[in-house]
Amino acid sequence: MSTRPSYRKPAGPVFKTIKGNAMDDKFHDECGIVGVYGHPEAAKLAYLSLYAQQHRGQESAGIVSSNGKKICHHKGMGQVADVFSENTLKRLRGWVAIGHTRYSTAGDTVLLNAQPLTASFNRGLVSIAHNGNLTNARQLRKTLEDGGSIFQTTSDTEVILHLIARSKKKDFPDALAESLLQLEGAYSLVVLHQDHLYAVRDPRGFRPLVMGILPRIPGQASLPELTADSAFVFASETCAFDLIGAQTICEVQPGEIVQVNSEGYRVTRFAPENQHSFCIFEHVYFARPDSMIFGRSVHSSRDNLGRRLAREAPADADIVVPVPDSGVAAAVGYSAESGLPFHFALIRNHYVGRTFIEPEQSIRDFGVKLKLNPVRSILEGKRVVLVDDSIVRGTTSRKIVRIVREGGASEVHVRISCPPTISPCFYGIDTPTQKELIASSHNVEEIRQYLEADSLVYLSLEGLLASVGDDKGEFCTACYTGNYPTKLVQLQAEANQRR
Amino acid sequence: MSTRPSYRKPAGPVFKTIKGNAMDDKFHDECGIVGVYGHPEAAKLAYLSLYAQQHRGQESAGIVSSNGKKICHHKGMGQVADVFSENTLKRLRGWVAIGHTRYSTAGDTVLLNAQPLTASFNRGLVSIAHNGNLTNARQLRKTLEDGGSIFQTTSDTEVILHLIARSKKKDFPDALAESLLQLEGAYSLVVLHQDHLYAVRDPRGFRPLVMGILPRIPGQASLPELTADSAFVFASETCAFDLIGAQTICEVQPGEIVQVNSEGYRVTRFAPENQHSFCIFEHVYFARPDSMIFGRSVHSSRDNLGRRLAREAPADADIVVPVPDSGVAAAVGYSAESGLPFHFALIRNHYVGRTFIEPEQSIRDFGVKLKLNPVRSILEGKRVVLVDDSIVRGTTSRKIVRIVREGGASEVHVRISCPPTISPCFYGIDTPTQKELIASSHNVEEIRQYLEADSLVYLSLEGLLASVGDDKGEFCTACYTGNYPTKLVQLQAEANQRR
Amino acid sequence: MSTRPSYRKPAGPVFKTIKGNAMDDKFHDECGIVGVYGHPEAAKLAYLSLYAQQHRGQESAGIVSSNGKKICHHKGMGQVADVFSENTLKRLRGWVAIGHTRYSTAGDTVLLNAQPLTASFNRGLVSIAHNGNLTNARQLRKTLEDGGSIFQTTSDTEVILHLIARSKKKDFPDALAESLLQLEGAYSLVVLHQDHLYAVRDPRGFRPLVMGILPRIPGQASLPELTADSAFVFASETCAFDLIGAQTICEVQPGEIVQVNSEGYRVTRFAPENQHSFCIFEHVYFARPDSMIFGRSVHSSRDNLGRRLAREAPADADIVVPVPDSGVAAAVGYSAESGLPFHFALIRNHYVGRTFIEPEQSIRDFGVKLKLNPVRSILEGKRVVLVDDSIVRGTTSRKIVRIVREGGASEVHVRISCPPTISPCFYGIDTPTQKELIASSHNVEEIRQYLEADSLVYLSLEGLLASVGDDKGEFCTACYTGNYPTKLVQLQAEANQRR
Amino acid sequence: MSTRPSYRKPAGPVFKTIKGNAMDDKFHDECGIVGVYGHPEAAKLAYLSLYAQQHRGQESAGIVSSNGKKICHHKGMGQVADVFSENTLKRLRGWVAIGHTRYSTAGDTVLLNAQPLTASFNRGLVSIAHNGNLTNARQLRKTLEDGGSIFQTTSDTEVILHLIARSKKKDFPDALAESLLQLEGAYSLVVLHQDHLYAVRDPRGFRPLVMGILPRIPGQASLPELTADSAFVFASETCAFDLIGAQTICEVQPGEIVQVNSEGYRVTRFAPENQHSFCIFEHVYFARPDSMIFGRSVHSSRDNLGRRLAREAPADADIVVPVPDSGVAAAVGYSAESGLPFHFALIRNHYVGRTFIEPEQSIRDFGVKLKLNPVRSILEGKRVVLVDDSIVRGTTSRKIVRIVREGGASEVHVRISCPPTISPCFYGIDTPTQKELIASSHNVEEIRQYLEADSLVYLSLEGLLASVGDDKGEFCTACYTGNYPTKLVQLQAEANQRR
Repeated sequence: MSTRPSYRKPAGPVFKTIKGNAMDDKFHDECGIVGVYGHPEAAKLAYLSLYAQQHRGQESAGIVSSNGKKICHHKGMGQVADVFSENTLKRLRGWVAIGHTRYSTAGDTVLLNAQPLTASFNRGLVSIAHNGNLTNARQLRKTLEDGGSIFQTTSDTEVILHLIARSKKKDFPDALAESLLQLEGAYSLVVLHQDHLYAVRDPRGFRPLVMGILPRIPGQASLPELTADSAFVFASETCAFDLIGAQTICEVQPGEIVQVNSEGYRVTRFAPENQHSFCIFEHVYFARPDSMIFGRSVHSSRDNLGRRLAREAPADADIVVPVPDSGVAAAVGYSAESGLPFHFALIRNHYVGRTFIEPEQSIRDFGVKLKLNPVRSILEGKRVVLVDDSIVRGTTSRKIVRIVREGGASEVHVRISCPPTISPCFYGIDTPTQKELIASSHNVEEIRQYLEADSLVYLSLEGLLASVGDDKGEFCTACYTGNYPTKLVQLQAEANQRR
Repeated sequence: MSTRPSYRKPAGPVFKTIKGNAMDDKFHDECGIVGVYGHPEAAKLAYLSLYAQQHRGQESAGIVSSNGKKICHHKGMGQVADVFSENTLKRLRGWVAIGHTRYSTAGDTVLLNAQPLTASFNRGLVSIAHNGNLTNARQLRKTLEDGGSIFQTTSDTEVILHLIARSKKKDFPDALAESLLQLEGAYSLVVLHQDHLYAVRDPRGFRPLVMGILPRIPGQASLPELTADSAFVFASETCAFDLIGAQTICEVQPGEIVQVNSEGYRVTRFAPENQHSFCIFEHVYFARPDSMIFGRSVHSSRDNLGRRLAREAPADADIVVPVPDSGVAAAVGYSAESGLPFHFALIRNHYVGRTFIEPEQSIRDFGVKLKLNPVRSILEGKRVVLVDDSIVRGTTSRKIVRIVREGGASEVHVRISCPPTISPCFYGIDTPTQKELIASSHNVEEIRQYLEADSLVYLSLEGLLASVGDDKGEFCTACYTGNYPTKLVQLQAEANQRR
Repeated sequence: MSTRPSYRKPAGPVFKTIKGNAMDDKFHDECGIVGVYGHPEAAKLAYLSLYAQQHRGQESAGIVSSNGKKICHHKGMGQVADVFSENTLKRLRGWVAIGHTRYSTAGDTVLLNAQPLTASFNRGLVSIAHNGNLTNARQLRKTLEDGGSIFQTTSDTEVILHLIARSKKKDFPDALAESLLQLEGAYSLVVLHQDHLYAVRDPRGFRPLVMGILPRIPGQASLPELTADSAFVFASETCAFDLIGAQTICEVQPGEIVQVNSEGYRVTRFAPENQHSFCIFEHVYFARPDSMIFGRSVHSSRDNLGRRLAREAPADADIVVPVPDSGVAAAVGYSAESGLPFHFALIRNHYVGRTFIEPEQSIRDFGVKLKLNPVRSILEGKRVVLVDDSIVRGTTSRKIVRIVREGGASEVHVRISCPPTISPCFYGIDTPTQKELIASSHNVEEIRQYLEADSLVYLSLEGLLASVGDDKGEFCTACYTGNYPTKLVQLQAEANQRR
Repeated sequence: MSTRPSYRKPAGPVFKTIKGNAMDDKFHDECGIVGVYGHPEAAKLAYLSLYAQQHRGQESAGIVSSNGKKICHHKGMGQVADVFSENTLKRLRGWVAIGHTRYSTAGDTVLLNAQPLTASFNRGLVSIAHNGNLTNARQLRKTLEDGGSIFQTTSDTEVILHLIARSKKKDFPDALAESLLQLEGAYSLVVLHQDHLYAVRDPRGFRPLVMGILPRIPGQASLPELTADSAFVFASETCAFDLIGAQTICEVQPGEIVQVNSEGYRVTRFAPENQHSFCIFEHVYFARPDSMIFGRSVHSSRDNLGRRLAREAPADADIVVPVPDSGVAAAVGYSAESGLPFHFALIRNHYVGRTFIEPEQSIRDFGVKLKLNPVRSILEGKRVVLVDDSIVRGTTSRKIVRIVREGGASEVHVRISCPPTISPCFYGIDTPTQKELIASSHNVEEIRQYLEADSLVYLSLEGLLASVGDDKGEFCTACYTGNYPTKLVQLQAEANQRR
């Protein structure tokens, strides 16, 4: 009843879908996490931090809080502001909280997968929020099931709970560390056990995780349980700290566990140093531009990308136009470097919802028109440099080129601020399968023809690495190179190619 | 209703309630279950069957269906008609389905406990719906947790899933049987595994479970997978069969597993014959009067109760008035036997909802008034026999007596169609704790004084047993006698009394 | 764009439906109204009073309140408990309130018709709640439109607002009285203007309207604006007073206006005495049995109907079975008078909702089964007297007879506690058109054959009148006789018959 | 925002607000309208057109459709995509439709004011959707009420319906024209009567209204009623036409009625030419940049504003930063003209909802932080030109300046792409009262000090007019000058100043 092909899907019961190609499964991708320790409004701060990280996942959200004696939790489908009300936040009592926001597929069953996941075992209750994707979850799950474990979600994260429960280590931190050593792939975690908070980052550091401090206001609700003067906060991105007024202390380093309790925090290493594999796509597209990710300003990276693109791929054109919103930052850089004027010539409808109703009589390119309308007064007779951050399947890009041309442009020169995307991600970014990626099977000229563009240039890999300041090979660029940093995925990828 | 004896709660994580006192929860009581095998509209028949059994649990409902390859499920808080829509039923495809409706406490977390519970393990997916309450769940849970199991609900039912997963038996039916032998207490179960349906009743047969047959209409959507000509259905009560047009075949006997698959059904015994402990409260109050329960008409039992009460406890009065709706059936019997005219002199408001808004200025006995209004033209100057099926805490009964008197009655003679309720139920009926039961600490005269009634008589235990035709001691009467048929509960009950 | 045939529909724009037969229009029927003056929780008392009168209309509800300076209102589709929340009631400030609950057809537009209706004109704001149906609304509307008025609802009640606005009388009470004199048909009204409350009943008194008094609790929120010591309340039925603890003072007499303001109340007569036309159907079916209607106990009337029926139409049978819930009261009377035992042999599902989902494979008589299940243990081999209050189209009655027979009855003798219903009501009860009434075109024997009953007897008109104690011809019996007490309707009815 | 000059409110019933001061309401501002004639999917096209104009009003939406025989309508609170579902659109049958989207204050009563407004009178049903604000509505309303009219909304638009109903003209178009001549102020209207559609623009042309054509696809659902080959569409902005694929024909000229029926369209003039008073704020802020408004590209106007601002008010600075989203277009122009690099240094949270929950412990400038976060890597040590389109109360601007400085800016030079806003609008833009406008009582240097900016320069009025190409004085600039083009408002404004 549960055919589990290939390595993509980290195993699990098959709810509602049996896919011949499990590469499509997108359950595990793109999340934001947060942890708060030692604040009388812990759940509200978690809520605000999730809110600032809403771009990391908009389909479900959850918070678990604790006052050291009792655990409260609330999760639901939808955006953060919809899932939580004044009342639900009020019920989330305590001075410790962890939270999670995520993408997921539609459907009622998915609430089971919403995080944080909570389970009870012989050490009491533990809750966990996970950003990333485990690449050996399927193998671990099979072993666990053979040992008598039952699984109630399809989330790879559930595997971690089982490993902790099965550990023979006496102390929780040791059990946690022992469990982590069995994982392969990407994981930034916040874990709540009793009144202790743990923040964890995998040995390669695929996903970001930062630690901050928030002084408690004198005279605020007293927390006799705590001796530290400040609250500690963790988040995927620093923009969460900006909103709640926290100061960034540091990144949680790859292979480290930060444990926070009433006496303060303590950093331990659960895994030896490994080659870093920071996700370069966080800088290219995913993170907010006002965040610091892997110690670098995201905005600067994107500005660099646009400037480098202008140098590598100049165009004999009149204006620079971004594809909103993904191409804006690079387009501003391109314009600055090239001297060509920047114009918002594609206007985005900010009210687009998921359940939009189409007319039965097809309006040509209706879906894209719903999102983008060209400004004829800008485009009329102009040679346009159209900047975006990537081409995925090519179908949307093709429609946008057409819209720009119908808006009056005499030439459309497409410039992409990355190399061609040729391989899917298995570390937590939701990308289509290899087959669907147009650049996996077409060269640049073929893609240009498909787009009906006058020219098409991608940024070079060197340009990309230089733009994010990677001179030590610390970034994972698997989506542009097909070189996966973890063994299991790499073997499978090679096997796939031999077929 | 809060302080439960310590053996009540079968263990589980403490969501939202203080950890020090884990004994508060009342999650396991009062449910209706249903199973359908071999019908192209299995989920819709399950839905209708739950609907007919809505009185057995109104706070959550769920259905799991299967077409042999894939499992679909939907559950939600609320009544059956609210939880399921045309669309959700459409998505519940397949020819096998199990369903569950239940009471539970309020709060968002409870959805996790809604049944059927589904888990994945090394035998694939299994779903289970449970009516009853396991009395050794806490012990089993501790053992399982010590062995590395994690629990994601507070339901005793989850224990069964773990036991099956841990069984070393090769075949699923053997693993199921092995697991059942470890359980103590009350359980009527329907279990869905692959495309097999299992119906189970505990060796004492605390809770009802009946099997029926539904001929498939010729020319209906073909089911090539099936060889049997008919669909088989299971339900807690026969009224579910009446609605869907099925014929009752038999009761699932205590200690039996009925397994249904594409070739037909097969009955096996997983436990030796044991003393029966049919729940007498099903006949007294819980089941629908149009159902056959334990092979007897519920209506007949209730009519008998009223008639016997009239003989045991006649009253020098003018009219017989039921407390709606619980006292109606017995009051009709009382009237018929005594010759005193029957009158609906308390009118019930059928629209009472849970979130009713009270005025700030207290209206005396507002809550009861909201439900019951006296008909003065009947009561004026009359000596009234007021019939109900039980007195629990006494507070509501006291208010009703007062209302009847304010409605003009010159005398109020309370007659109860059962013996005094002195002990809580641990087999699946949600009763208050012993302390809260007025009859556990007051004699009949004291209760009469508290009620301010002119007389008060309860039916005798003999009268009760005779009314339900129990001449072989097959019924559990623990709530009236304190004699619990299972060892663990009995020991704990005795220990409590020694304190 | 608005073809308005025949006299049934009192005119109005045609929203969403153009019916060839406007007799079907059921916009104006079956309502409950309430008025509260001089209480700090006026809106809450109105809410409770509507709640008690929920049986008079379950599809929309509304309340308008005033503190003498500002008007607040809230209305919505659904039952009272759903339409109002703690918050909406809090916002309905003031010491005066009127409320309304009603039936209506489904659809979003209907909210426009929800009452109370409020309008602004040169005398300020006026709100009105109406129970009944105006039979000359169409004519009045045409005249008003010809004079330049615009209508924003399809409700006949809007006509009253326009008439008041057009009146040249200087004082509001005079303008109100002048307007009322132009109306024909049924109207019990509560009207809110500034801080004055008016209660009105049409000269024939078709619909009930009672006045009560509620002492204000000493020390309650002071109402310096008021000099009277008590709050005054108005409602369609006395059961509303029972719930809020008010004492009935009197009925508002036909042709009277009761005006309440800060100085007390004053009764005036706006129309001369007329022949009374109390709606007999209030006693037969519509009102709650615990209410006093037209000065009589509704329960007594129904008990009388059953007893009289037993005398007029005895049956050689074994048991008396009511069609729940409409036939219960008369069946109890029939049983008492005949000596035949009374049994609830048809069990009603109390959870029936409007949006129930049927199986695609038709289950025979599914709709009725969903509501009623026979108790075989009672019916088996019995000769049954089946009692109901009316037969409308005959289709449902036929199904019920069949269900009783399938439940095991050897004979089914149908007894109806009224004469045959041969004519539709135009005074506020929602009945089908004449064509649809089976008794308008079939004699009793034909109906019996259609029902497949062993015998069928209706109560006589004399029996009906005697049962409600009408010795002065004060009741309207048009539905049983076709004699309409108002001219316009009578003329039209006669014209229809000539066709 | 509460004390409005007394002429603001065009009178009407006082719902929920104190009667003594009826001037508080802001019901009449900022709307988008649409009309579709002669298309089988008229309602869907109206829906799409409203969707494209969502920025013109996000709090309620409505559509009325007609097939010549029957009118269907649906309106609700919320954004277009929330108000309409597939089902509601399906029910809006017919080939003619008008729609409306608007701002309004919160509260349940407001649904009554949602447009289109529909009324029935002696000419049948008429529906109307209105963008703009009538400045003599209060006077007209009083006259109408004195004549016996009743008002059921607080909308000035209802006045128009009454005037049409009162007109003695025989034909509807004549009655419409006669009514329009009595109006003063701003109104762009679409009117639906029988199967005729009317589009109207006031003689000064305050608000935009464009007409377009949409060829019907051959083979589409036939419309035998129509002889014209194409559908005609009307909208406030051309961006609506872009989405549905319509071609702009022309603007509806000030003082014109365009009547469309089955035979085509006909333009008539109902008022003589008047001085034009095009709303300049449509170009400055309100309209979408991809629309043509008053025959000009909105984007071009805004680009001009930024360029002119750079020339009039250069700054010795390093970068140009817009206040998102209002200042973006002008900032791009400023950057291009000045040569200073453009940077998005304030990141907007796109997920801001209305019901956001604040922490109890105040986070400094929390509200603005929730919307805007500074990018430190850009701002650090930079001299910033901060560009916005207006300063209203000054409080938000002050917080933004502070945020920019806290983000690391060494200097903040504020540049505003308009003259100071000194007077409220009474023609359909929702601005605060004069008192609340900081520029009405403070000079530029005082404002600069309040903002704590290093410099502050507004664009000159000449610069503004030149940027929108107004060389003939066709624009209303009352908000910047206090010179109101209509008499009643001007008199009142002068009276206010004398106080």
